Amino acid sequence: MNTYKICLLAGDGIGPEIIAEGVKVLNAVGAKYDTAFEYTDALIGGAAIDETGEPLPTATLDAARASDAVLLAAVGGPKWDTTDPAAPRPEQGLLGIRKELGLYTNLRPVQIFNALADASTLRPEIVDGVDMMIVRELTGGLYFGRRERFYDEPEAGVNGAPGQRAYDTLEYSEYEIERIARQAFEIARKRRNKVTSVDKANVLETSRLWREIVHRVHEEAYADVELEDLLVDNTAMQLINRPADFDVVVTENMFGDILSDEAAQITGSLGMLASASLGDGVALYEPSHGSAPDIAGRGIANPLAQILSVEMMLRYSFNMAEAADDIRRAVTEVLDAGWRTGDIKGADTPADQVVGTARMGDLVVERL
Amino acid sequence: MNTYKICLLAGDGIGPEIIAEGVKVLNAVGAKYDTAFEYTDALIGGAAIDETGEPLPTATLDAARASDAVLLAAVGGPKWDTTDPAAPRPEQGLLGIRKELGLYTNLRPVQIFNALADASTLRPEIVDGVDMMIVRELTGGLYFGRRERFYDEPEAGVNGAPGQRAYDTLEYSEYEIERIARQAFEIARKRRNKVTSVDKANVLETSRLWREIVHRVHEEAYADVELEDLLVDNTAMQLINRPADFDVVVTENMFGDILSDEAAQITGSLGMLASASLGDGVALYEPSHGSAPDIAGRGIANPLAQILSVEMMLRYSFNMAEAADDIRRAVTEVLDAGWRTGDIKGADTPADQVVGTARMGDLVVERL
Ligand SMILES: CC(C)[C@H](C(=O)O)[C@@H](O)C(=O)O
Ligand SMILES: CC(C)[C@H](C(=O)O)[C@@H](O)C(=O)O
Repeated sequence: MNTYKICLLAGDGIGPEIIAEGVKVLNAVGAKYDTAFEYTDALIGGAAIDETGEPLPTATLDAARASDAVLLAAVGGPKWDTTDPAAPRPEQGLLGIRKELGLYTNLRPVQIFNALADASTLRPEIVDGVDMMIVRELTGGLYFGRRERFYDEPEAGVNGAPGQRAYDTLEYSEYEIERIARQAFEIARKRRNKVTSVDKANVLETSRLWREIVHRVHEEAYADVELEDLLVDNTAMQLINRPADFDVVVTENMFGDILSDEAAQITGSLGMLASASLGDGVALYEPSHGSAPDIAGRGIANPLAQILSVEMMLRYSFNMAEAADDIRRAVTEVLDAGWRTGDIKGADTPADQVVGTARMGDLVVERL
Repeated sequence: MNTYKICLLAGDGIGPEIIAEGVKVLNAVGAKYDTAFEYTDALIGGAAIDETGEPLPTATLDAARASDAVLLAAVGGPKWDTTDPAAPRPEQGLLGIRKELGLYTNLRPVQIFNALADASTLRPEIVDGVDMMIVRELTGGLYFGRRERFYDEPEAGVNGAPGQRAYDTLEYSEYEIERIARQAFEIARKRRNKVTSVDKANVLETSRLWREIVHRVHEEAYADVELEDLLVDNTAMQLINRPADFDVVVTENMFGDILSDEAAQITGSLGMLASASLGDGVALYEPSHGSAPDIAGRGIANPLAQILSVEMMLRYSFNMAEAADDIRRAVTEVLDAGWRTGDIKGADTPADQVVGTARMGDLVVERL
């Protein structure tokens, strides 16, 4: 019997509620496939700030490193919102763990579940067949570059009055671009064999470097994969105009943040989308959505993205493709049977088919 | 009789074809309102590179400065695409003139013409009533920060092999943020009195400064205007989810580039959207779309965004609101009468209502 150690990071808002359903599904899979999952809970985000003063305590990092995979729910909330550069912020926990574990590849699959096609604000014929994988570079760029704030520099002020200045640095090395480009091409080979590389090469030096390296890697090792360059502003348009045309989209950290959320919204069911963050060691899995503080604690959050992040964990970290397929099938069946949480219910969903977080988890487990 | 000097920058691709229609409309307006428009042609972008080796010759800047307003068509094309940091690029002409003329406010109105509501890939009930003004900071941020490329730094290479590194700098001063925030609040007061300020304050120091300054300005002078903060990734989602909710959206340069194109695409008719770039002196007006090199020279490009950029010029630079209203009415009537260029024709547009660039310009002029 295989044993896997999983570090659970419930975080903030709806986090504790939805991660419980992920664990429920893992336990069901373990029973079926004769695999033991051992869990360690650890603190991150606002919950960690409240308890320890830090968004990412050392104990959490140690627990993550000692595990075979990390399951995260979500971090953040208005309680910890601040513009004070010195104050700890929940997101630092998330950014910190990405950096510390070297999770440079963020995979965000964007797919439409047939039963939920109506949830999109786009016309049905436009979203029909949408199936893309956004490959976002996750440990470089503006997120981790040098940043600083300067106070009271007279010449920066309005009309000579004292003023402030701030900067952030967007930096990339050939090495960082090469490894994410390889990931994108490898993934494309297992899909529809097409990569769209997104940059802003008409303005940014990092984008010109990006484009050069992506093309060098392509020529050297992946000439069989179709490659196109698309400017980030044009991509923001084409995702709305012809979303089904995209297969693999690879881009730097900040563009990836914006475009992956845009692409997620195209499906209309953000509560269904999971993500995987991979490096060379332990990987991290989480829903694409946030901590939804407005509905926290009410037992109504949609746990399906968290459950689908477990699917990704089984696939990428534990090589349990069959069990992963099981989860996807079970989720599809639950939706096809008409079950919905509040966020994905339609105008014509009968009231008795709208269920809460725990019941939705049970419905998936019943079908495993 | 008033006389205005207009500097014409036709640029590349379809530029010369569509700017001719803008001039046609200006002449018609001039005749009707007893105003003389004097034109000076100047080179910019690829056309300027081909002729002079530079994307923004000094003569062009001089001509722009000597004018009362600048009418630009579009720049760029595959002919001048390069990732060589040392080579001249058409976009440098556009970026250069923005900087040199101090055009720090970019206004991009996003509206739906009723006759074209079907052109959107979004559901009709979602785009119904979309009417927002994107206020993009245009002379700061990543576009104009320090950037550099480093070659052959062994430690940056793959597996110790020689590699390159590059960086771009995102920088903002209090002064730059304050003046664009004021613009946004002023504009909101003439509209639906609501401003959405977009940033990435959970990651970027410049965004935290942005948020602080926007709120200070709000409290000091515009407390009557409704103000909300929205993270850039969330904005990319909400523009698709509930576009009609937005009134004025204010943001920094790169976020504005991405979001204004996304918002434009929501209407489905990018060929209809104009933009104004304002500073403290002469202003510049241009279509929101690009130079469309694929259809250049065929007389089929849509001139309406260029014509609507003339509308903005009359409104903002010449205080000719009545004439501006005239143009908008004429364009609306042409569309209501069923006339279309290829890019905005529908599946049921009769072939004899699909017209070319010059004919479309004539149709507008006939109705002035
Ligand atoms: C919470 C935030 C820092 C984070 C990011 O910007 O990366 C989130 O938006 C995400 O996409 O995972
Ligand atoms: C051509 C390019 C440099 C420019 C920009 O990014 O500002 C364009 O996309 C725009 O939005 O006007």
